[in-house]
Amino acid sequence: MDAEEFRRRGKEMVDLVADYLENIEDRPVYPDVEPGYLRSLIPTEAPQDPENYEDIIKDVERVIMPGITHWHSPNFFAYFPTASSYPAMLADMLCGAIGCIGFSWAASPACTELETVMLDWLGKMLQLPECFLAGTHGQGGGVIQGTASEATLMSLLAARCKAVRRIQATNSDMSEMEILSKLVAYTSDQAHSSVERAALIGGVKMKKVPTDEHYAVRKDMFMKMVEEDKADGLLPFYFCATLGTTPSCAFDKTEELGPLCNEENMWMHIDAAYAGSAFICPEFRPLLNGVEFADSFNFNPHKWLLINFDCSAMWVKKRADLIGAFKMDPLYLKHENQESGLVTDYRHWQIPLGRRFRSLKMWFVFRMYGLNGLQAYIRKGSNELNQNLLKRITQCREIHLVPCQLSGRFVLRFAICARKIESHHVQKAWQHITQLTFELLQEPEH
Amino acid sequence: MDAEEFRRRGKEMVDLVADYLENIEDRPVYPDVEPGYLRSLIPTEAPQDPENYEDIIKDVERVIMPGITHWHSPNFFAYFPTASSYPAMLADMLCGAIGCIGFSWAASPACTELETVMLDWLGKMLQLPECFLAGTHGQGGGVIQGTASEATLMSLLAARCKAVRRIQATNSDMSEMEILSKLVAYTSDQAHSSVERAALIGGVKMKKVPTDEHYAVRKDMFMKMVEEDKADGLLPFYFCATLGTTPSCAFDKTEELGPLCNEENMWMHIDAAYAGSAFICPEFRPLLNGVEFADSFNFNPHKWLLINFDCSAMWVKKRADLIGAFKMDPLYLKHENQESGLVTDYRHWQIPLGRRFRSLKMWFVFRMYGLNGLQAYIRKGSNELNQNLLKRITQCREIHLVPCQLSGRFVLRFAICARKIESHHVQKAWQHITQLTFELLQEPEH
Ligand SMILES: Cc1ncc(COP(=O)(O)O)c(C=O)c1O
Ligand SMILES: Cc1ncc(COP(=O)(O)O)c(C=O)c1O
Repeated sequence: MDAEEFRRRGKEMVDLVADYLENIEDRPVYPDVEPGYLRSLIPTEAPQDPENYEDIIKDVERVIMPGITHWHSPNFFAYFPTASSYPAMLADMLCGAIGCIGFSWAASPACTELETVMLDWLGKMLQLPECFLAGTHGQGGGVIQGTASEATLMSLLAARCKAVRRIQATNSDMSEMEILSKLVAYTSDQAHSSVERAALIGGVKMKKVPTDEHYAVRKDMFMKMVEEDKADGLLPFYFCATLGTTPSCAFDKTEELGPLCNEENMWMHIDAAYAGSAFICPEFRPLLNGVEFADSFNFNPHKWLLINFDCSAMWVKKRADLIGAFKMDPLYLKHENQESGLVTDYRHWQIPLGRRFRSLKMWFVFRMYGLNGLQAYIRKGSNELNQNLLKRITQCREIHLVPCQLSGRFVLRFAICARKIESHHVQKAWQHITQLTFELLQEPEH
Repeated sequence: MDAEEFRRRGKEMVDLVADYLENIEDRPVYPDVEPGYLRSLIPTEAPQDPENYEDIIKDVERVIMPGITHWHSPNFFAYFPTASSYPAMLADMLCGAIGCIGFSWAASPACTELETVMLDWLGKMLQLPECFLAGTHGQGGGVIQGTASEATLMSLLAARCKAVRRIQATNSDMSEMEILSKLVAYTSDQAHSSVERAALIGGVKMKKVPTDEHYAVRKDMFMKMVEEDKADGLLPFYFCATLGTTPSCAFDKTEELGPLCNEENMWMHIDAAYAGSAFICPEFRPLLNGVEFADSFNFNPHKWLLINFDCSAMWVKKRADLIGAFKMDPLYLKHENQESGLVTDYRHWQIPLGRRFRSLKMWFVFRMYGLNGLQAYIRKGSNELNQNLLKRITQCREIHLVPCQLSGRFVLRFAICARKIESHHVQKAWQHITQLTFELLQEPEH
């Protein structure tokens, strides 16, 4: 395929993509195929000679589409949202064409530098404390990881390395292996499976802290575990808090837990993979309070911020902690600028060596939406839901209330008005509202 | 941006991509920018309101291009090749539109099944032993990893887990931590830095085996190290062989080393990240001999097989080994088919949870090129080089030889012809040829 044919086929593909996304609702959201369905639909070996492009495209409908779970169908409510937007797709096309492997500054300065600046932009949108930003002289900074799983693993490995060094500095008779065998990490019993997996990979013990009735980790319970483990000769070194748990979107009490971690020299990582995008709205930002105590923080713009997978944003307070965990500089990857202190070589920040130019997607999306547009997108779901809920309440005529607008959000106002009101009236009204909400949420279009 | 605008912008982007790649030679291959150049070219914060798409596209030339190291420029000889082809880019557009996260079979059956079948196709192209293929009942199978680094890490983790279980089965008094502290992995002193990094992440010792004069690991030297370590009470459990080392494309002697690893119950992983694509040509396939002794094998189609980054192909003989290393099944990721034994849930095969529909790129490229086309592509470099070399030899008139074609390769024939020839003539001719080759390779167009 030469450039001329690519121009033609590429334009056809653009239409195919737009057609697919415009008509996605007509397709059954979950495929009706049995395991193994695909193997019998295509040859057992690659063709010897080139095939026609048309035949391949025909096979997309014949072979692929019947087996697709359509994640972007409005009828998809499984797992978690995965982001998608046209500007991000355009940026991905450009990323594919440039096709640089940005493992170091020199391997493509623009790829590295745009990423650093985009993570600063996004950090400011979240009102992250200054210390997490790279700025021009900062010790912190951000990086795009492929997934939250990798961000958690990187934070755990950095914490492990830092703990071993710190403990060895004061206990020179302890071997590294002895320290490793005594290290203990913690996370909530509601944490995502990737957190436990990180500990398994890193070869350290991990304990699950029981949560309260709101599925949140609280200080008292956590402190008790840490004290007991210390009394048993273990070495607590890491805590992964969750802001927005996968099962129920619960929030650990990081404002209580953070100071404890800091006192105990435990690395605090915050996993907000799923809910984190909401923190760009001032009204949700309080949920992020306590991040100032964290050593690292991560959320997935590829879940809820319109940036196609993969794009998981991670910040650290001290990038030296992350880099120090396993910096390696074989000669073939060295470049003359790397010791200047000014450059970032992202290969030290992540598990893989290679990396794509993913910050292009951020740049396109942030600019095409603007912060206002992104906030409106986050708020959209709740605004629509609230409007529909109000409609139901009004139709039922059991109670009466009116809405208001607060910083762009559609809010249901519940005012205590009547002279003769008793608390049982309020309770009954609340029951009615939650019942209607429950019914509304059961319906497929929500 | 709505679908209509995307149709327009997408087609413009297709032209931009084709223009970029057609005229890439006119751009300086290595950028002339200082570290930090980009920050001053763009605002310090994301815009509040949406910007014009035109302004963003103008900024690609103004902000991004000056800082790009053009990996696909014909003047780029640094690091290693990274693959790029139009069919792969088209497939990537489709992958972005479908935007499924294929961590389990149910999360998108087509995504999982096409990957399994494509890895079988590719395995057959490489003439991998049957036991590495998934087939319909196989115990082995392939997976697309993001990078070779991740493949190596996965193999080391699987080996670590298997070794701990095996040793505990016969030494029930040894704790897991004690075993971990005695495990020792090996690799060549020429291995890629990602191999050492895998051991650091996994928290196990790794020793470097000195190589012979061709930079290859040999059995005698390796066996000596293993014996000494065993005598010291260590537990050898893993060897990562390299086929095509990064500095000099050397090949470890896997035919000698494999049986040793098998006898010693050591997992043998083969890292052929860079050179592996060549094994699809029968004339290079002998370099892969010994793979039948390996537990896992990996190479990067994203380096030299026309499939854009990221696409690293990995096969294992027993997928249970890989999956068993850290299978976790939280309820929210379970699906009804998963215990049927017929389905593959690729999340157990890799570090990240999420994964894109990368096998589409393989499918498009394999079909658009056919095996013949892929082989011709691999052979192209050497054919051209050999033709140019012959031209030089002919121009110099010191020696005379003629070419031939062997299975599509342009071969320089060196026939011993004259009655009065002595071995010093042959030596002189060889010196002459290597000198001309050396000069040719120094020139920028090669
Ligand atoms: C709280 C939380 N953490 C981590 C993850 C894993 O995300 P990723 O696929 O990016 O590894 C999820 C995914 O649902 C999540 O909800
Ligand atoms: C032999 C070898 N192994 C591993 C790698 C790392 O590859 P990746 O970037 O896919 O992790 C390379 C890259 O050059 C290599 O040459």
